[in-house]
Amino acid sequence: MTLPVTLEHETTVISKDGKKSRTETVAIETPFKVALNDETIGASMVLPTGLQEFGVGFLFGQGYIQTKEQVKEVYVCPEGRISVYADVETTSPKEVIITSGCGGTGKISRSMLEDAFEPLAECQISLDEIEKFILEVLHRSDLGLKTHCIHACGFWHEGRLAAFYEDVGRHNAVDKVIGAILMGKIPAKGAIYTTGRLTSDMVLKCARIGIPIVMSRTAPSSLGLAIAKRAGVTLAAYARPHRVNCFHAHERIVS
Amino acid sequence: MTLPVTLEHETTVISKDGKKSRTETVAIETPFKVALNDETIGASMVLPTGLQEFGVGFLFGQGYIQTKEQVKEVYVCPEGRISVYADVETTSPKEVIITSGCGGTGKISRSMLEDAFEPLAECQISLDEIEKFILEVLHRSDLGLKTHCIHACGFWHEGRLAAFYEDVGRHNAVDKVIGAILMGKIPAKGAIYTTGRLTSDMVLKCARIGIPIVMSRTAPSSLGLAIAKRAGVTLAAYARPHRVNCFHAHERIVS
Repeated sequence: MTLPVTLEHETTVISKDGKKSRTETVAIETPFKVALNDETIGASMVLPTGLQEFGVGFLFGQGYIQTKEQVKEVYVCPEGRISVYADVETTSPKEVIITSGCGGTGKISRSMLEDAFEPLAECQISLDEIEKFILEVLHRSDLGLKTHCIHACGFWHEGRLAAFYEDVGRHNAVDKVIGAILMGKIPAKGAIYTTGRLTSDMVLKCARIGIPIVMSRTAPSSLGLAIAKRAGVTLAAYARPHRVNCFHAHERIVS
Repeated sequence: MTLPVTLEHETTVISKDGKKSRTETVAIETPFKVALNDETIGASMVLPTGLQEFGVGFLFGQGYIQTKEQVKEVYVCPEGRISVYADVETTSPKEVIITSGCGGTGKISRSMLEDAFEPLAECQISLDEIEKFILEVLHRSDLGLKTHCIHACGFWHEGRLAAFYEDVGRHNAVDKVIGAILMGKIPAKGAIYTTGRLTSDMVLKCARIGIPIVMSRTAPSSLGLAIAKRAGVTLAAYARPHRVNCFHAHERIVS
């Protein structure tokens, strides 16, 4: 099932030279409901790609699903519903915090912020790998260049780009990668790279799923950094093909 | 009351030349609860500035507050609570959609997406005004340049920059402007400019409060555009000092 991800729209460019018509490509943002064991948990605006992964990652982000073993089946109805079946009780986190971040999840429970983290798998990435990783993510799709409204997210495992997702929200793109981990498509042991900022919830969900290396094209916030420090996650910001600025646990990056 | 908005952090820059220490400035993202008439409605991660406005705008974004007349008093406790008192019933929207967008609100009710909009006030902005507006917003603060983790939002009314707010989330920054409108600090009749993308919820809250001209440094999504068309809002994207690319209702922009 492939749903359209862009539409064309006639715009008017206004400058000192007057008004001129132009055709722009616009990213499609569409509401999808996410249900867990036939109970609707929420609805989110998404770019309609990687919807199975999104549904699972969304439920993980909000604390409904914890492990890969819990996930049983996922169905996507193109009319706007993602149905996840999992061995879990469908209870909501008690106290939720709405996050500053872009994206699908939008809320996290206070306990997720305060609970201890599991130890992370040992893992390293070299500067040469980082170069390949970033270039492959940035060149994989022209949707971002066309619409200026897309975040990309990739996952690097054992020397290759193992997953690539895009979304209107930086969070949703990360949720799709996390959903791929929970669906057994990729392992958590590797590096994630996002074009979005690393605010609290972005780092939190990566730490909770057990990704040891979290990289971004841009900056972390104070709470994103604090979570990385507490979880022991390598936080590499301003990541470029030849250079990263590591805010925590730089020993996992080798030159 | 002034709370710190940045912290300094020692980072490690890793390149082919080896590892070097560096000091980076990080934007502070901190959780604040928002209460309406002593009932806690939610909590959100924010940059701790313009907190009164944020609290009011947050409650508007989620449909608890509708009009300026309802807002009575706002108190901010620096330990993390914004208390808004308003002449409203504190009932939650029935069916909520979690948004793709950055930011505080994170959810909107389905009825907000589907309800009719009030007619907008007549309003125009010239290219000369747009130039001043954008340059004033971009030069007003160096927090974004220092941290790479900040969205700015300004409001233009009768030839001058009437409001300016910043936040880690593009949504929160818009919520602060909308809070300023609901607190009677600025009128809704004018132009808003944001450095963030115009996804559905960004355009929706501007349309609901009655802002006729919505401008962004970057792109709209399909649903942001659809809401602008339905509400009759002027949607000007890729806004630069000498040029805007108008996706709807360009007649409010005069050269």
